[in-house]
Amino acid sequence: MAGRGVAERRVLKVDAGAGSGGRRARDRLAVEEPLELRVAGRPVGVTMRTPGNDFELAVGYCLSERLVARPDDIEAVRFCAPEGQPQEYNVLTVDLRPGVPVPDPSLDRLAVTSSSCGVCGKASIEAVTLACPTLAGDRLAVPAEVLAAIPGRVREAQRVFEQTGGLHAAAICDAGGAVGCVREDVGRHNAVDKVIGWAATERRLPLTGTVLFVSGRCSFEVVQKAAVAGVPLVAAVSAPTSLAVDLAEQVGMTLVGFLRGDTMNVYSHAHRVSLPTPAAAPAASPAPA
Amino acid sequence: MAGRGVAERRVLKVDAGAGSGGRRARDRLAVEEPLELRVAGRPVGVTMRTPGNDFELAVGYCLSERLVARPDDIEAVRFCAPEGQPQEYNVLTVDLRPGVPVPDPSLDRLAVTSSSCGVCGKASIEAVTLACPTLAGDRLAVPAEVLAAIPGRVREAQRVFEQTGGLHAAAICDAGGAVGCVREDVGRHNAVDKVIGWAATERRLPLTGTVLFVSGRCSFEVVQKAAVAGVPLVAAVSAPTSLAVDLAEQVGMTLVGFLRGDTMNVYSHAHRVSLPTPAAAPAASPAPA
Repeated sequence: MAGRGVAERRVLKVDAGAGSGGRRARDRLAVEEPLELRVAGRPVGVTMRTPGNDFELAVGYCLSERLVARPDDIEAVRFCAPEGQPQEYNVLTVDLRPGVPVPDPSLDRLAVTSSSCGVCGKASIEAVTLACPTLAGDRLAVPAEVLAAIPGRVREAQRVFEQTGGLHAAAICDAGGAVGCVREDVGRHNAVDKVIGWAATERRLPLTGTVLFVSGRCSFEVVQKAAVAGVPLVAAVSAPTSLAVDLAEQVGMTLVGFLRGDTMNVYSHAHRVSLPTPAAAPAASPAPA
Repeated sequence: MAGRGVAERRVLKVDAGAGSGGRRARDRLAVEEPLELRVAGRPVGVTMRTPGNDFELAVGYCLSERLVARPDDIEAVRFCAPEGQPQEYNVLTVDLRPGVPVPDPSLDRLAVTSSSCGVCGKASIEAVTLACPTLAGDRLAVPAEVLAAIPGRVREAQRVFEQTGGLHAAAICDAGGAVGCVREDVGRHNAVDKVIGWAATERRLPLTGTVLFVSGRCSFEVVQKAAVAGVPLVAAVSAPTSLAVDLAEQVGMTLVGFLRGDTMNVYSHAHRVSLPTPAAAPAASPAPA
């Protein structure tokens, strides 16, 4: 049974080395949902998290970010819905004991947000969908074997990773798998921002007809950034989150995960991945535009 | 030659399966430094990043987070030092073209900061050091073979990861390697906050004499959160960043990275890791307190 932390999504399992058309399956994904944290009624941050142990998350965040000095400063933690909105269990309020100073978010590195749009995965997806053009019309088609070759090509182009093992990489590739730009960073999102910034300074936005490769996992925010930049296909070495898949589905993006060796999982809009042709049979894959 | 993205640090390489005392070496780490971003003179966020391609990062962040609508809205990007402070190349200002609306950080999920303390790795370390007690007096001693067994024990205790492959884990263990609490999350920091929140609700803070295990890489913020919670030893499966090592060194924390199989790298305060005893020789490791 899938708990609140796990979600099932349909997936097309592709093996670029086998002459087969892909296999439909169900895959279990880590759930990602926004959580807005309020302290003494004041919003102090939104984090994308996996639901579960949310009260611990709130208490630990308040202590480790030094919003409160001691556990005893916290009187209660409770879920609360923004006024007039359904309870989504994505807004948590931390009440402080009388006399405990209310933290001032301007004094520390904290995220602030307007929750006027609601705080839930659905609202997050709607906000991105409204803000970026649909990718559904992008006629990119990439053979599965081209996708399978990208991690090795990016690794060759990486400078720092092989020295340290401590960096995320993001890369923009064309439909033939040629690497246009690789950027590395300790932060997953920063590596993506760097390649988008490269594309902007090279006047290549929107990134129509390209593949964004990321060396690790694929979160909501990676898909969001790619969608805003007009990327029709994101391929990740590791797992996507549930919300990443849902957003990719909604904006018309192809999302590939677990891109390792010859195999990969296609989580959305699989028509852009041209499947291996069974030996001595006509190609069933979509033709490139 | 190490570029701006790579830093060298001394390390003790330990093999729990070999009867040897560890080997001193130099290791190359990914550099992590804060970058404050300002748009039209107004601070909009601080991110921990690897220096290099910073202008691309600024442009990509502004576009992908929709602070500006088009690349042409940006007139210039430049480094600027806070008044009266040395140029650390860690504050970037994005100038907008005349007539382009200045983004309002309160409308989006953005980090705000006071840069009164300066924005550089040294200032970040000082801020944490002032805020948390030194760990130097914590007399934890853990045999290397106990550390080596922790990843397997945590994996056994994890519920979601094996289903999805998409989650970070954090765990609190005692000096014998017994797992007290495991929490999982799509966000590395959230998993750490959850175990600290667990410790707070169990009234176990500060976490004197414990090991914090993290399933992936170890960033500055993981060490920061552990230090505030009083953890004397952090062990990570993957690489630490340069700033994580520097902070651990400063606050008296033992930092172990690349904890895989029998081997590990000890980056700071190695006296808490009891080395394997060479066969038929007296123990050279520090005795437990």
